[in-house]
Amino acid sequence: MHNFTFHNPVKIVFGKDTIPQLNQLIDKKAKVLLTYGGGSIKKNGIYKQVKSALKKRKIVEFGGIEPNPAYETCIKAIELGRKEKVDFVLAVGGGSVLDGSKFIAAGIPFRGKDTWQIVCTGGASVKSALPLGTVLTLPATGSEMNTFAVISKLSTKEKLAFGTPLCYPQFSILDPQTTYSLDKKQLRNGIVDTFVHVSEQYATKDLNTPLQDRFAEGIYKTLINIAPAVMNGKKDYDSRASFMWCATLALNGLINRGVQEDWSTHCIGHEMTEFFGLAHAETLAIVMPAVWKYELKNKADKLAMLAENVWGVKKGTKQQKAVAAIDRTIKFFNSIGMPTSLKDYNLTPADCDMVVNRAAQRGWKIGENSDINAKALEKIFKLCF
Amino acid sequence: MHNFTFHNPVKIVFGKDTIPQLNQLIDKKAKVLLTYGGGSIKKNGIYKQVKSALKKRKIVEFGGIEPNPAYETCIKAIELGRKEKVDFVLAVGGGSVLDGSKFIAAGIPFRGKDTWQIVCTGGASVKSALPLGTVLTLPATGSEMNTFAVISKLSTKEKLAFGTPLCYPQFSILDPQTTYSLDKKQLRNGIVDTFVHVSEQYATKDLNTPLQDRFAEGIYKTLINIAPAVMNGKKDYDSRASFMWCATLALNGLINRGVQEDWSTHCIGHEMTEFFGLAHAETLAIVMPAVWKYELKNKADKLAMLAENVWGVKKGTKQQKAVAAIDRTIKFFNSIGMPTSLKDYNLTPADCDMVVNRAAQRGWKIGENSDINAKALEKIFKLCF
Repeated sequence: MHNFTFHNPVKIVFGKDTIPQLNQLIDKKAKVLLTYGGGSIKKNGIYKQVKSALKKRKIVEFGGIEPNPAYETCIKAIELGRKEKVDFVLAVGGGSVLDGSKFIAAGIPFRGKDTWQIVCTGGASVKSALPLGTVLTLPATGSEMNTFAVISKLSTKEKLAFGTPLCYPQFSILDPQTTYSLDKKQLRNGIVDTFVHVSEQYATKDLNTPLQDRFAEGIYKTLINIAPAVMNGKKDYDSRASFMWCATLALNGLINRGVQEDWSTHCIGHEMTEFFGLAHAETLAIVMPAVWKYELKNKADKLAMLAENVWGVKKGTKQQKAVAAIDRTIKFFNSIGMPTSLKDYNLTPADCDMVVNRAAQRGWKIGENSDINAKALEKIFKLCF
Repeated sequence: MHNFTFHNPVKIVFGKDTIPQLNQLIDKKAKVLLTYGGGSIKKNGIYKQVKSALKKRKIVEFGGIEPNPAYETCIKAIELGRKEKVDFVLAVGGGSVLDGSKFIAAGIPFRGKDTWQIVCTGGASVKSALPLGTVLTLPATGSEMNTFAVISKLSTKEKLAFGTPLCYPQFSILDPQTTYSLDKKQLRNGIVDTFVHVSEQYATKDLNTPLQDRFAEGIYKTLINIAPAVMNGKKDYDSRASFMWCATLALNGLINRGVQEDWSTHCIGHEMTEFFGLAHAETLAIVMPAVWKYELKNKADKLAMLAENVWGVKKGTKQQKAVAAIDRTIKFFNSIGMPTSLKDYNLTPADCDMVVNRAAQRGWKIGENSDINAKALEKIFKLCF
């Protein structure tokens, strides 16, 4: 086990009808920048609940943060926040709204000339950030309880992550009832995103970390078990609650303490979103099985463990179990309506050249063994069809 | 699943040779009250490491905090801390030293007339506390990452718990190497204490909380797997590291979020420590199986789940599985040298009358169903032989 530090001060307020607690969680005198996405919160009643909870506080609204939040959008919110001298950011939405709002919270007091530096430096250039609170409406990214945000720059087709403890939300409200209005694609994407987050911290070199492994397997098993009840679209509170808590704990810095990580699927997936326009989770569902096939030898120990402990595969060699883990994972994704081949999006191997070329330009050597360069990426893309 | 709030801001610094980080974790100008137990830290080199890390800071020492820390001892440390005007408490030791130090940290600035009020009110009377840091040397109580402390008043034979967010340690350093000098009894007690902590949050009414259940089972499974390597007394870093992390996560407020709890085993065990002088874990190992037998019907769902998911018992009725879970747990305790009968301590049923009588005086109705009164306790004690 590696040495580690664990320090996650986010206050989670979880459960039915918890949005009114905003009134206790935000200073009465705060001037709040209220950020949200495409406006679905106005249709499903969440906007109304939030406004009601905020009582007589001064509110400046900024809607329209898109999926894969754009630097170009967020910079407008930063300008608005500076002009209006807001002193609190309240993000209401899914991972994209939360990620964009972290960038906004860090961007408003940022004194550098180019605000994109926040992202370029991975967050190291952030010296302060406005306090941030969130009301989560889409379980998927874990952004509600971590320091990370992924921001896309449209002008250069870049999608990059940054993270700083200054961007931890002060609090996040998780009311599972807010997920009732999500459509099947959003639910499916959230389940896959969570599943892959766990995998990037589990399907790696075994460093003898049994507790972390059992916790990761606990998230996998819960997700697999609740998926049918989540996907059937009914208002099944308990399955939505477990789904929401799974997504949060999959990426709050707990299951990766002391373990080897490998975020290559995410790195490749981000490029595919930029070049092909696929949703984040759609890219992950295709790339992860391909990366696992490509890295079968290196990941055999943990993939066999996944097969045994999660999928219940007890027979076969380690290699056979590892292959079974990949097959079962693909079948699970398909079972909730998630495609796992680039063919399903009418893409061809030639389309992938753009991504491979940029990996070559950037001299990529990603993955837990730094062995995924442009050449390896080409091979991985062949496994995506 | 119940609604819940989760907010645990303790910074955990985990791993090999992490004690020197004290120098970064404590303000350079702090006047430190250094608290410890019977002096074992002077024999095993930990005291020297701590003093070296504290550099030139002003240090006031208070040793001699005993197992089941006594109010009468801690009050002396509070007087010393007030006299010396310390502004930071650094606890170095196991759960007893940490618990005592929480009481000391809350007691120094306490303005009430009777400092025992802190305990009597369950922590509600605490309005401020000195900042507290810990260096843990004995994995067991989870005190390093929670708000709780259990204090014994010798004059009245009371052993009571209190808790307040003001008593969260600012940081806790967990170096698994510090456990190398523990003897077999301490290791055994730590494993059982952790196991029972998990049980008080798991073997309860099923509220459909699969993720919390899988996490709890993950701690059980890890403990059971590493127990032989921990108990053989060799310096096996990885098993000690997993043991330490299990003990912390068993009682840091994570696995009990949204679930039903039942701390009746602890309540009864505390009385047995006071009246019989048994170590905390020794009482738990006897009482928990007895409580489970007494509550077999009420706890059958979760005990059967324990049998299936942890002990691998796949055959039999729910009732049979529940019984198997109790048997397997007793065998596990025995396998690490832990007695599970009051006979093993040469106690007789008549000895238990004192505890039953006080339960009657106090009008006990403990347990998740408030069904353990003095009469029930008498029956439970019969199952302890």
